[in-house]
Formats: sequence, C-alpha cells, structure tokens
Amino acid sequence: MTAPLSTARGGALAILDPDETDLLHTLDHIFTSWGTGAGAREILPPPVYPLGDLEKFDVYENFPQLQFVGGPLDVTGTPPVPVGGSFARDDTAPAILGLPHSTCYGAYLYCENRSVAPDTTLTLVNRCFRNENEYEGLRRLLSFHMREIVAVGSYEHTQDLNARFTDRIERFVKELGLDVVRRAAADPFFERDGGRALLQQLSPVKHEFQVDGLAIASVNTHRNFFGERCGITLDDTGEHAYTGCVAFGLERWLAVLGDRFAGDLPGARAAVTAADAATAP
Amino acid sequence: MTAPLSTARGGALAILDPDETDLLHTLDHIFTSWGTGAGAREILPPPVYPLGDLEKFDVYENFPQLQFVGGPLDVTGTPPVPVGGSFARDDTAPAILGLPHSTCYGAYLYCENRSVAPDTTLTLVNRCFRNENEYEGLRRLLSFHMREIVAVGSYEHTQDLNARFTDRIERFVKELGLDVVRRAAADPFFERDGGRALLQQLSPVKHEFQVDGLAIASVNTHRNFFGERCGITLDDTGEHAYTGCVAFGLERWLAVLGDRFAGDLPGARAAVTAADAATAP
Repeated sequence: MTAPLSTARGGALAILDPDETDLLHTLDHIFTSWGTGAGAREILPPPVYPLGDLEKFDVYENFPQLQFVGGPLDVTGTPPVPVGGSFARDDTAPAILGLPHSTCYGAYLYCENRSVAPDTTLTLVNRCFRNENEYEGLRRLLSFHMREIVAVGSYEHTQDLNARFTDRIERFVKELGLDVVRRAAADPFFERDGGRALLQQLSPVKHEFQVDGLAIASVNTHRNFFGERCGITLDDTGEHAYTGCVAFGLERWLAVLGDRFAGDLPGARAAVTAADAATAP
Repeated sequence: MTAPLSTARGGALAILDPDETDLLHTLDHIFTSWGTGAGAREILPPPVYPLGDLEKFDVYENFPQLQFVGGPLDVTGTPPVPVGGSFARDDTAPAILGLPHSTCYGAYLYCENRSVAPDTTLTLVNRCFRNENEYEGLRRLLSFHMREIVAVGSYEHTQDLNARFTDRIERFVKELGLDVVRRAAADPFFERDGGRALLQQLSPVKHEFQVDGLAIASVNTHRNFFGERCGITLDDTGEHAYTGCVAFGLERWLAVLGDRFAGDLPGARAAVTAADAATAP
C-alpha cells in the first residue's frame, strides 16, 4: 500500500501516515530526552478533563472562542440521530468535559494541593484542541500534539530552565538549516488580571520561535499563577510555586521540516537525529 | 517530589504518575514491536473525528449510551459561564466532533476509498472514550489508551494475524504469572445487522483475554463490514477488504500488573521486558 500524505478529515484533523508518524515520534523522543536530561520525569495526562479542572485556569473566561467541550448523548428517550454531521443541542446532555488547548495544565493538576521540591521538572505530551477560524494542513489543526517541559518550583528554577532551552532550541533549529526568529509574544492568559497584565508589559512572559511565520516552540513564564490556582507550595519556604514551560507543537515541526527537506521525511528524520547529537550540551 | 499513584480527576480520569507512565510506554513499545515485527507500519490518528466519520460505523445507532461528542461553546453573545462543572445545552454550539470508543476506526478511515495489498497491516494507539455507569481506577476509565494491530486485506490475512497474536498474548501473559482466561464475547457491533448477528452466533467474532475478570486484550474479526463502509478494496481482486484487529487496553495492563507485582511498577516493567524476550517467536 502506498501511503498518501496525512489523510485530512474535514480539513481540520489528520491521520498521520507512517513517515509522518515516525518523524513525529523521533522529534518527541528528542524533546523528551531534553527534559529527562534536565531532571524531568514524565507523566501522562488524560486528553480531556472534568470541566471544573480547566475552569480553575480561567480558560472559559479568557479564551472562550478557542474551547471545545464534550458530553454524552441524551439517551433518556429514543437515541438521537445526527443530521448533517452534527447533533442538535437537545440531543446532548450538558457538557462536563473540557478538551484542553494546552498541555501543561496536566502538570499543574498533577501537583495540585501538594508541596514540591523547588527544582521540580516534569515532561508530558498531550493532544491539544483549538477551535480556530481556519485550519491549514499540519500548520494549523483542530487537534495536535504538544510536548512540554514544565518547571514547578522557585522563580529562579523556572528562569534557569527557560534560559537553558531557549539556547538549545535556537542551536537545534539553526543546525537543521531553518531560519528561526525569536519573538516576544503576548500571552492572553493574564488579560483579565490587572496586576499580571501590567507585569507582562514590563517583562514579556512568552517567547515564540517562529519559522516561516509559524510558531513551532515557545518558552513561557507564569510567575505563581498556576501555583496559586492549584495550591502548589514549595517544600522549603511554603510559598506558592512558580511555574514556567517550554512547549513544542509537533505537527508544526513536521510542516516546516517537510518544506525544508522537500517532502523527504525519512531524510528529515535522519537530520533531526544528527542535529540533536551535534547540539547536545 | 514523591509521586503519588495516578491522580484521579473526578474518579473517571487519571493523570499517570512517572512509574505508571514508564510502564505504559514499555508495554506499548512491546505491543507495537509485535505489530511491526508482523509487517505493520504505524499511523497516528486524531483523538477526535468529525462526527460523520464515526457515524459510518453505526456507533450512534449501536452504542449511543457509550458515546461522547464535542463541540465549541456558543460565543455569539456573552461567553457562557460553567455552573457546577458543566455547561448547559444552550451554552454550546451543536456537537460536530465524535470522541471514539475504539482505536481501530482510525485504520479504516486511513484506508478509506483506497485499494490495499491483501496483507496490509497497520498499528496505531489512540485515546478512547467511554461513557460508563461506573468508573473504577485504572480498571475502568472514561478515557484510556488502546493499542491495536489491524489487518486489512484478505480474509485469510485477518485470520492468520488473529491466530498468531492469540498464541503470543497467551504465552506472554502466562510468562508474567498472570492467570488468563480466553473467552468468546459478543460484539454488539453487529446487533442491528441481522445477517452478521446470525454469523456471530455461528462463529464468534471476538475473543477476550481476561485476568481477574478484566478484559486486557481482545482479538476481533469484522468480516468485510469496515471494508464496505469505508470503500476499501483489495489490489488483487477488487473486492471489499476484510479486517481484523488485536487490541490492548493499556491502563488495564497497568492495573493487573500492579496487583501481580504488589505495586512495584519498576519491577513489573523489568518483568514485561523479560517476558517479551522469553516468548518472542
């Protein structure tokens, strides 16, 4: 069987073919090894959460247009029948599940109501979901993989991790022959929060790594926002933990590497392995 | 940070801790290698599908009570606010996404409207979703990982694959010191389809491997149901493809291995690696 490129489902979703799958896994193993090499252990979050878990992070207040939610069908009477590929509102029970738009929430929920060492690092990958106005192949999907390396601990720990991976991402991407631009970006996370919004103007909390105008990775600092919301405290001081994260949008890496290597994904796979070895610290 | 066992979210969902995550990955790598050793290549399906994709398989007709569906919030006016962990029906737009209750659908959709070699084998893992009356730790979750090895081709190919893996699963599980029972099971897939329901009575289409009453794997044969529904034909004869699949519920393996090794998951991980080596064909 000749494998076609990713089989698009309605333009918004894709089934990755074997070469795409292999390249995605290779990239994910590389970024995971960066995390474990920095002392992270891996955890595995669910792809959906009880709505109340995501509500803690103001996602329905700050990004309502991006969110997908889910629930069961209403089967109290005759089971409903979809029409034109959708169920009417009355066919479904109230939505109780939140489909996350970012991976790192799982790390904060994992640490919820716990005390952690000030140098705690976790890594995790999840399927993320975003309701976008337009989708564009692997560059912009309704659901995609985001691998993250997350620091939970002292402010210094979060800044150290971000600085270390800023450098590593830039060296890795350049070794691959990609033109990368690092841009400060606004994080709408804090837009409803006056104090943090002001802080963000003084000191950017998000830097994106862009190739061809597409953000393929970012480093983010959240001060103690998630530590407060999840009741995560530090072993040594008892204060709320600070958090920061480094995020990789894996299908976007496939898209820019597909362009860079003219569709030769096995060649791209060999190149990322070599680039990782060449830029290891 | 001392890792607790999986952090339950509302009893139905879990964030796997590092030891659980490592064991799940080790098991998944083993089952994947069984597939690739049998000639499979891996593909990567999305965790949600356009509803119409799952509707092709009668899931809303045959298993309506199990299904979760999803959609965006209705943000045409003031964005809605969740109350008590759920959004009311009027807060959401019509549901356009189907959350699959089984992994192998991705393989049939990948092959949709294509002609395949009569010995095609694919492997894939996905997050599956089931709306159950009760949840029970890792034994019964709302969302869990199911790894599958899927045969798409001639009837003989599907039967060969199922026979090969029936033997391998039994030897692997016994090597691990688990008491396993193989049981014929009804597959409600075909309950609305008179002809196939009759066939099922004559010849079981599903066999489950049960440990402590829990099905941790199954082998399934679907005749040409999916081949017909997805318009998959055979390169040699042009007939609709037959399909069969071997499925592993990974969190359930964690549950039975956690019991077998009295919670020593690193020990369980070493044991499954050794058992795989000892039972390789």
